[in-house]
Amino acid sequence: MYKTIAPLVLASQSPRRRELLGRMGIEFSLASADIDEFCRPDEEASDFVCRMAEEKALAVAGEFPGSWILAADTIVVLQGEVLGKPEDRSAAVKMLSKIAGNRHQVLTAFTLYHAATESLITRLDSSRVKIAALSAKQISAYIDTGEPLDKAGSYAVQGLGGAFVEAIEGSPTNVIGLPLPLVINELLLNKIITLIVSPGD
Amino acid sequence: MYKTIAPLVLASQSPRRRELLGRMGIEFSLASADIDEFCRPDEEASDFVCRMAEEKALAVAGEFPGSWILAADTIVVLQGEVLGKPEDRSAAVKMLSKIAGNRHQVLTAFTLYHAATESLITRLDSSRVKIAALSAKQISAYIDTGEPLDKAGSYAVQGLGGAFVEAIEGSPTNVIGLPLPLVINELLLNKIITLIVSPGD
Repeated sequence: MYKTIAPLVLASQSPRRRELLGRMGIEFSLASADIDEFCRPDEEASDFVCRMAEEKALAVAGEFPGSWILAADTIVVLQGEVLGKPEDRSAAVKMLSKIAGNRHQVLTAFTLYHAATESLITRLDSSRVKIAALSAKQISAYIDTGEPLDKAGSYAVQGLGGAFVEAIEGSPTNVIGLPLPLVINELLLNKIITLIVSPGD
Repeated sequence: MYKTIAPLVLASQSPRRRELLGRMGIEFSLASADIDEFCRPDEEASDFVCRMAEEKALAVAGEFPGSWILAADTIVVLQGEVLGKPEDRSAAVKMLSKIAGNRHQVLTAFTLYHAATESLITRLDSSRVKIAALSAKQISAYIDTGEPLDKAGSYAVQGLGGAFVEAIEGSPTNVIGLPLPLVINELLLNKIITLIVSPGD
């Protein structure tokens, strides 16, 4: 449906982001941005996630001066508290116990950066997610699968965690890690991709 | 995370439903239910979708008397009108033009049927979906991909259509075609699956 017309680099190790963007038929190269992901004291969750997306984009920009860099960051926020990736099993148990039976917010920020023209675009999307009430046994069985351990908030909506996601309010791809309607829109506006139109259309 | 403890048959040709259930680690056999999918005059959309799920389950039950049959049906409803699968390109253009820029309802009903014990359980879930405003070119480019042609409402939330889904209110797996939280709950309640619990838990 889309054709890539300017070099694009996805600066993300997340297989979910790679899959979401690839599913759209968009061609891109890959880079890994290693940055420190720590929230500053008094930093708002929305400022933090935008800063993370920008830092990831800037971290790899030197290697690709003529390309557009796309980077993103996703965080889970429950009652003002940012829930990152769990450090270990006990942190995952604690996080899942907190989000079970409650609604939390998922924030994803993405940055498009083009070093040669000094273009920097950062956008933020927010969704709310209702997780089912979970027994200690369910939490334990879920952690045994290994899925929670590298996920913000300790669950994956597109994986086994999908069984616990009772409802979303907002963009479902934002919850996975890349809000496609906003991303596609910015890629089109900045002439990084174009729509494939057949001659008869 | 789950172990199948009673024979289960998924009566569905939908690759999305097969993928959703399979992703949960649940084992099942496959069957194809061929039924007439026509809404009766004055039949409510919610009655129609429940009847379809039940008819699909009953259609294959004779072949699997000792198994649980799981069948489902999904419909898209816009302002009281049921939008099925488009018959051809021009029907897809018409449907996509209608849903673009609007919110519609997605109803999925599923039936669990066990012939030997005459157990019949039917449940219904409903979500609302907001589709982005689309230009004629976008609609045309999307139909060119072939994706809309076998989908209720002419789009797939888990495919290229994901670029147009601005927001969901409700269960995201319901929109794909099988509301996992409800389905898993019924499979557990009826002892068709069980949670895998490790000795230490």
